[in-house]
Amino acid sequence: MLGLMMDRPLLIKDILENAVANFPDQEIVTRTVEGPIHRYTYAEANVRIRKLANALKANGVKKGDRIGVIGWNTFRQFELYYALAGIGAVCHTINPRLGPENAGYVINHAGDEWIFFDTTFTPLIEALAPHLKSVKNFVSLTDKTSMPDFSAGELRSYEDMIADASDEIVWEIFDENTASGLCYTSGTTGVPKGVLYSHRSTVLQSYAANLPTSLNMQVGDCVLPVVPMFHVNAWNIPYACLMIGAKMVFPGPALDGESLATLMEDEEVQFSLGVPTVWLGLLQYLDGAGKTLKHMKKTLVGGSALPEKIVRGFKKHDVEVIQGWGMTEMSPLGTTMSLTPAERSLPEDEQIAITLKQGRAIFGVEMRLVDVDGHVLPHDGEHEGHLQVRGPWIVKEYYNHDKDILTVDGWFDTGDVATIDRTGIMQITDRAKDVIKSGGEWVSSIDIENAAMSHEGVAQAAVIAAKHPKWDERPLLLVVRAAGSSVTADEVKAYIAERLPKIAWPDAVEFIDELPLGATGKVLKTKLREQFKDYELAS
Amino acid sequence: MLGLMMDRPLLIKDILENAVANFPDQEIVTRTVEGPIHRYTYAEANVRIRKLANALKANGVKKGDRIGVIGWNTFRQFELYYALAGIGAVCHTINPRLGPENAGYVINHAGDEWIFFDTTFTPLIEALAPHLKSVKNFVSLTDKTSMPDFSAGELRSYEDMIADASDEIVWEIFDENTASGLCYTSGTTGVPKGVLYSHRSTVLQSYAANLPTSLNMQVGDCVLPVVPMFHVNAWNIPYACLMIGAKMVFPGPALDGESLATLMEDEEVQFSLGVPTVWLGLLQYLDGAGKTLKHMKKTLVGGSALPEKIVRGFKKHDVEVIQGWGMTEMSPLGTTMSLTPAERSLPEDEQIAITLKQGRAIFGVEMRLVDVDGHVLPHDGEHEGHLQVRGPWIVKEYYNHDKDILTVDGWFDTGDVATIDRTGIMQITDRAKDVIKSGGEWVSSIDIENAAMSHEGVAQAAVIAAKHPKWDERPLLLVVRAAGSSVTADEVKAYIAERLPKIAWPDAVEFIDELPLGATGKVLKTKLREQFKDYELAS
Repeated sequence: MLGLMMDRPLLIKDILENAVANFPDQEIVTRTVEGPIHRYTYAEANVRIRKLANALKANGVKKGDRIGVIGWNTFRQFELYYALAGIGAVCHTINPRLGPENAGYVINHAGDEWIFFDTTFTPLIEALAPHLKSVKNFVSLTDKTSMPDFSAGELRSYEDMIADASDEIVWEIFDENTASGLCYTSGTTGVPKGVLYSHRSTVLQSYAANLPTSLNMQVGDCVLPVVPMFHVNAWNIPYACLMIGAKMVFPGPALDGESLATLMEDEEVQFSLGVPTVWLGLLQYLDGAGKTLKHMKKTLVGGSALPEKIVRGFKKHDVEVIQGWGMTEMSPLGTTMSLTPAERSLPEDEQIAITLKQGRAIFGVEMRLVDVDGHVLPHDGEHEGHLQVRGPWIVKEYYNHDKDILTVDGWFDTGDVATIDRTGIMQITDRAKDVIKSGGEWVSSIDIENAAMSHEGVAQAAVIAAKHPKWDERPLLLVVRAAGSSVTADEVKAYIAERLPKIAWPDAVEFIDELPLGATGKVLKTKLREQFKDYELAS
Repeated sequence: MLGLMMDRPLLIKDILENAVANFPDQEIVTRTVEGPIHRYTYAEANVRIRKLANALKANGVKKGDRIGVIGWNTFRQFELYYALAGIGAVCHTINPRLGPENAGYVINHAGDEWIFFDTTFTPLIEALAPHLKSVKNFVSLTDKTSMPDFSAGELRSYEDMIADASDEIVWEIFDENTASGLCYTSGTTGVPKGVLYSHRSTVLQSYAANLPTSLNMQVGDCVLPVVPMFHVNAWNIPYACLMIGAKMVFPGPALDGESLATLMEDEEVQFSLGVPTVWLGLLQYLDGAGKTLKHMKKTLVGGSALPEKIVRGFKKHDVEVIQGWGMTEMSPLGTTMSLTPAERSLPEDEQIAITLKQGRAIFGVEMRLVDVDGHVLPHDGEHEGHLQVRGPWIVKEYYNHDKDILTVDGWFDTGDVATIDRTGIMQITDRAKDVIKSGGEWVSSIDIENAAMSHEGVAQAAVIAAKHPKWDERPLLLVVRAAGSSVTADEVKAYIAERLPKIAWPDAVEFIDELPLGATGKVLKTKLREQFKDYELAS
């Protein structure tokens, strides 16, 4: 027997309409690519989104068309998010850090017909243009006076395009499973793979992001997403914020500590979201300049593991740090480490230890652990297993990618190895492919890296498996020394030996100049493995 | 083009599973019908819910079966909510205040095969039993030692029924539109009509209830729903709380001020929800006993208009009052009056004036105003129109009720007349059928009632339209005098004349002993109109 509720689809346009109906005067502030601050209201944004949608339709953009966008976090990319979704087109956000080869690959693979780009990326687009197969239109995200020289064909101005369009539109109602966004994985392993989000998955995750167990934003909060809009829809923040009438502050391309701190203070930002690297830059700036953040209450850190020094660094400024974990394949939010009242009453060091874990599955995400044979493992905080996930905003297949990616019983394997304790707290112990298989036991590369990085002479560290005649694999620790440090291999080994069980002591330490990084700032262990593939450990 | 996200349905069982995985030790506390406090954890509740589900299946309950429940807010009704949903059956919550005739009608109309009831309602069930057509099983929500005498057939004990059942279950995955709950309107106009909720509508509204713009509960809050579980799923609280790991406190049948205050203090309740009558009782008790509420931070008031004295009464105890508005047909949540930071910075009296409005549509609900010809009216805070709503948790048709109830373009008419201002704040000015049509203009009966009730000599007031030779209709004010008051009609008229525009001055005032009330405590104006149908006003 079916219920008798209205068959209303979950559509992204409804987020916009509800926001404008309830909070027309709320602000969206951008530090523009050109430099000055741009400021307008939800109601004014809505007018421009409607004009853009009409201009896109007048120029032949249809439902299902893929439209590429390479841009910073600005009000114009925000407008593209909503206008493209509103007309049923697919906003393909492209990570400029993919590099020309992968960027060209994803545009061709997606079959993008248009590319919208910030002027910063003009050289990249010019270099790509000869290799692009489907792109018919290039649009620069600026006005006529700031148009760049462009050698690769006709270039339109965004402002010009929408100037004369009508702001009257009746948004079409369509299937909530209609595709709305496309984002490619960074391709640290193999070619980038496309994840195709839907209106349903986006709306559901935006509800979930607003749970108190998740981001716990408050009505009218001022929110600054440092996490890029080219990366998994800036963790869905441009949707989640409108759902609750939050003020949004877009930092544009200026992501250095000083620029961020100034914008946060000027706009009275209360909540910000980003990856650890950005926060290290901000904290260093604040320390160096002897400044603090008067309005900031909270940051969400995700994208890679949260270093303890970020938690302690923000604590000095009375800013709470929440860890979030997710993946491009998860839209991206999977877990957040929100403390319960009981956890908040623990001594500070214990609280911080919990904060460093990845957290609890927000409602909508199911998690399980399985062993190498696919047996489900208990959630006891002890058993380590392959972390698998399931839910309405998790990928079932990649775009135009002829390969089953789910387990036979419908779960997505994250590629992480993790534990889950009896209160649901998940902790990633390693990437499955980075685990060192030492004589039948698993050794976490992350534990060794964290131990090494807490040594003051170590700037960065990465652990890979090296072949071992007796144990099959043993840890090889690669270290980038801190500036001015002359720390030795034996000193690092001795330091780790005090902190980790014997099985995790690296068999060798090698010093290198820098770690190879991928498009989202993650260490490319594939490259390190390639570089050290003939490294031999003694028995 | 469709997105490539997993096809996972929104099911109520997932709320339970997520809650137990993340907050196994969180408590659910009940003041039982028998008297003592019952206390257990989410994990323990889960075991009993699984046992109940298995017991129901073993006794032949199938997907789609309607199961009647007449009970107080207790852990056992809570278990029924989840166990019935889990196996795809329909939990038909029955309002005992419907009276025997309507209660019998709804049980037969729903085709309930089982009736679960609290011992309090044994006489009601015995009286109904001879008239019930589909009921095959009666279960008393108690253990064997507290079983009532029962003259109407075999009676099982709930505890007995689940005692030996297995607690192992693999919940079935089914269509998210599957019916989960059935609740009949109170039947103030015509026979009660059944609203059939689905898993989808319930899960979506639980997400929405947890928005900061809505209930804004916090992780680990302690929540006491006074609003009955027989009334629109206790405003969805038993679902919304589990989604965020809140402690739940069920008050059982003891809803007087002293019992509630004691329970709130003992269990450190922070948030409670109920109708104005209950809160007046609580505030009177606190005033009389010279007590306060040390933990309570917030109450949600709904079900009928929020009197100012409740807002001011709670303010004395540092409890914030939020008004919610909805309908059985809306699952029930439509709007909440959550203040924005700007509104919170207004002087107290202005804040309270806003608090007395019904509020903004939570994301998922669309609202519009139309005039008598069906033209859509502007949201300017001035135009009054028929309030119509649309959304995935709003009724599209009543259960087994052969009648189109939506407008041709798919909106549900609430039967209310309202304004909506440009920041989305909706204010109900009257029930459409209660509006007095005076010479082509609409006069709000509610405004006159509120003005009259602020006179200290007036205990209750109701306004109905009386025929008028010149103006067609004019207001007739019916007053129940306060104890000891001898206020006269002229005094009331003069008092109102100071407060309202001339068009709203009642043409006549009549004194009556009491107002007729319906099953949810609302004034039955139909009865008053019947009683005064021949009343004639002079021109």
